[in-house]
Amino acid sequence: MPERLIIIGGGAAGMSAAAKARRMRRDLEIAAYEQSGHVSYGACGFPYFIKGEIPRIEELIVRTPAQFVKSGIQAHVRHQVLAIDPAAHTLRVRNLATGAEFDDHWDRLILTTGGAPARPPLPGLDLPGIFTLRTVEDAVAIRDWIAEQRPSRGVIVGAGYIGLELAEALSAHGIHVTIVEAQAQVLPSLDQDLAAHVQAELERQGVDLRLERPVELFAGDERVRAVRAGGQRFSAEMVIFSVGVKPSVALARAAGIALGPTGAVAVDDHQRTSVPGIWAAGDVAEAHHLVTGQPAYVPLGTTANKQGRVAGTNAAGGDAVFGGIVGTNAVKVFDLQAAQTGLSERQARAAGYAVATVDVTANARAHYMPEHPPIHVKLVYEGDTRRLLGAQMVGVEGVAKRIDVIAVALHAGWTVDDLATLDLSYAPPFAPVWDPILVAANQASR
Amino acid sequence: MPERLIIIGGGAAGMSAAAKARRMRRDLEIAAYEQSGHVSYGACGFPYFIKGEIPRIEELIVRTPAQFVKSGIQAHVRHQVLAIDPAAHTLRVRNLATGAEFDDHWDRLILTTGGAPARPPLPGLDLPGIFTLRTVEDAVAIRDWIAEQRPSRGVIVGAGYIGLELAEALSAHGIHVTIVEAQAQVLPSLDQDLAAHVQAELERQGVDLRLERPVELFAGDERVRAVRAGGQRFSAEMVIFSVGVKPSVALARAAGIALGPTGAVAVDDHQRTSVPGIWAAGDVAEAHHLVTGQPAYVPLGTTANKQGRVAGTNAAGGDAVFGGIVGTNAVKVFDLQAAQTGLSERQARAAGYAVATVDVTANARAHYMPEHPPIHVKLVYEGDTRRLLGAQMVGVEGVAKRIDVIAVALHAGWTVDDLATLDLSYAPPFAPVWDPILVAANQASR
Repeated sequence: MPERLIIIGGGAAGMSAAAKARRMRRDLEIAAYEQSGHVSYGACGFPYFIKGEIPRIEELIVRTPAQFVKSGIQAHVRHQVLAIDPAAHTLRVRNLATGAEFDDHWDRLILTTGGAPARPPLPGLDLPGIFTLRTVEDAVAIRDWIAEQRPSRGVIVGAGYIGLELAEALSAHGIHVTIVEAQAQVLPSLDQDLAAHVQAELERQGVDLRLERPVELFAGDERVRAVRAGGQRFSAEMVIFSVGVKPSVALARAAGIALGPTGAVAVDDHQRTSVPGIWAAGDVAEAHHLVTGQPAYVPLGTTANKQGRVAGTNAAGGDAVFGGIVGTNAVKVFDLQAAQTGLSERQARAAGYAVATVDVTANARAHYMPEHPPIHVKLVYEGDTRRLLGAQMVGVEGVAKRIDVIAVALHAGWTVDDLATLDLSYAPPFAPVWDPILVAANQASR
Repeated sequence: MPERLIIIGGGAAGMSAAAKARRMRRDLEIAAYEQSGHVSYGACGFPYFIKGEIPRIEELIVRTPAQFVKSGIQAHVRHQVLAIDPAAHTLRVRNLATGAEFDDHWDRLILTTGGAPARPPLPGLDLPGIFTLRTVEDAVAIRDWIAEQRPSRGVIVGAGYIGLELAEALSAHGIHVTIVEAQAQVLPSLDQDLAAHVQAELERQGVDLRLERPVELFAGDERVRAVRAGGQRFSAEMVIFSVGVKPSVALARAAGIALGPTGAVAVDDHQRTSVPGIWAAGDVAEAHHLVTGQPAYVPLGTTANKQGRVAGTNAAGGDAVFGGIVGTNAVKVFDLQAAQTGLSERQARAAGYAVATVDVTANARAHYMPEHPPIHVKLVYEGDTRRLLGAQMVGVEGVAKRIDVIAVALHAGWTVDDLATLDLSYAPPFAPVWDPILVAANQASR
């Protein structure tokens, strides 16, 4: 009898794992159970679908269940896994379309249940017109609401990456956007001085940004009419609630799979969980942070894809290792790019490092070119060892991929002085003769 | 009596050295002699000045001689150094404006005589309307010729970086451009497969590209009328002769300063020449190539600036080290970007490595974004040790700074497998979830 691999969750991690396991072993039976109606979709593209830049949701679907079936992967959508029995190697599954429940068995199991939008118990959070954004269904519901209700005022709760991408998306429909955020800055993983540049761009684009306004309740009748936050009332014909993602660990916890210090599933460098025969990957799992040497919870699509491949390889009998993360991310906020890798100054201080920083504003192109927009660069390093801990950049161009230079340096464990010696590319339309990274590193080296 | 530092050559390397030495030591006498009429200018911007994108030549002048004098650096333009006497610590100098000659003395000397356009003895090369491009005077002469003569046909001899940038510049004036090149490809430091994408762009832009056409002679009367190359005649109302740069080593050689295997001045990691008290930097000097471990001649503005600072620091009594190069470069060719770092496949084979390569074409953005132009990526590595040797990229966006990721990996001495594990930035407008670099590295890792 062939061995059976079951994957719980059909997102980026799960379907990467499935595809990789299929390529490794033709003889393995592979089945995936996904609660929503879709597997294998580009969730990071949802804000651009909502904006209208991507016309059809189908463009975000990488592969349909039918395409997976063709390659020998039984991808079941609208199927919720209710429980895992690690001892018996069984699962309890509910077909959400029919309500029927059944048992399945597995020889190897990969847990990719992902994360879910945080939903604190706030009055009125279930009112029509209030959305979270995680699934294809969510994205379609938001776009349909905009098309059908033609809202003139929208409130976004939460000024993280998705909140800011959605501010751009809603503005593109002529919706007046208010962002309410509990903290004193946008993009809480950035330091406040860099976040200030992003805040200025939001205001320049007509977004009403309300910081230090923790949301208290949602008012309305048959639909949302207003948000109260920090004692103030903001009228709204739609609300997107986007205050962060929590790992969906209920199944894992009930099955006795160990969670790590972050609250996500603990995994080793082979994506093994504490239970033999069960791997985990993606937004449900932790990742090893190469700068701190500690487990971290940084749910991002890149990590999900990589961890999924590693889990799929290993579940199929191979031997793959996930190299860890340095926490690299980038976001477009209207005409601005913001990017980050490693630790922010605040994160580094909280982790107990003796932190030094350097801040520079340098040109993205040679100064004599007709346009040479500024890039703000902040380097965070250890004052005594001079080891690089992280970097942040904000600018209108040349930011998202420039941060990758620092990401490599973090992987390599470099000092700021190593950075100052780099032979980086130069041509007047793309960079000044002293790249902003070199300008910052030289300032730190003085 | 104060010590006297003399710098021969007022380009990027020389004036970086002067400025750095001044910051290090207030008491040092510093003088620079420059043959042309200008010091400290952004020579890499000349093609954009000729194109008209930079309206005034003054914008390319970083600092004037008068500004240097204010900060205590005697910058003498139109002064040619005729000879160096290392034993007597003297120089023979000619004031080109007056013809007067005089002697000067030095305690420390920095040689930054730069490079000069190669000028083989071709019939007719001195005809009016034929230009080389190196100095401010050259750039102004070319732009004046275009403005006054309104040429309709131009020939560029040489398809290196500057030749291709000038093709774009001349085309912007409505000039029909023919490029004649002796070799079988453009950008000879790239491999032919990557250069082919650049060639396609040139043709798409209406440039008449003639490969394997070594230039034989220039025809004309009181001005150039035609170029004969590879037995064929190309009519021309202007010609730019741009077949490469040779280090200007005549002074160094006559003074007994050792040249290296490349023909440029040999220097150690402190930019010291073979003669005590004499440093060299910039386009006249070699640089230590970190991939081959050998001296290389790669005359670029970034290296000139860095070496200049190191020479200036050390000549002022400090202790600075130049970290070496990996041969990173980038160029804009009309709507395309081409970039390279490390060794090409051809260079690596010539250097005796057991070469393996991988070629991929991947998207510069998420595939579902309305525009997701392709990037062609080629990685060159050692087949046995899997050590990364170099990379080349061509695409319409996200190329020039993406190559820097590989540059850092070369500095760190990584394998292609190390590259495959990188935590690079991801957001749909800037990169796909698998960055083209990861796609290439994963292909190599299979």
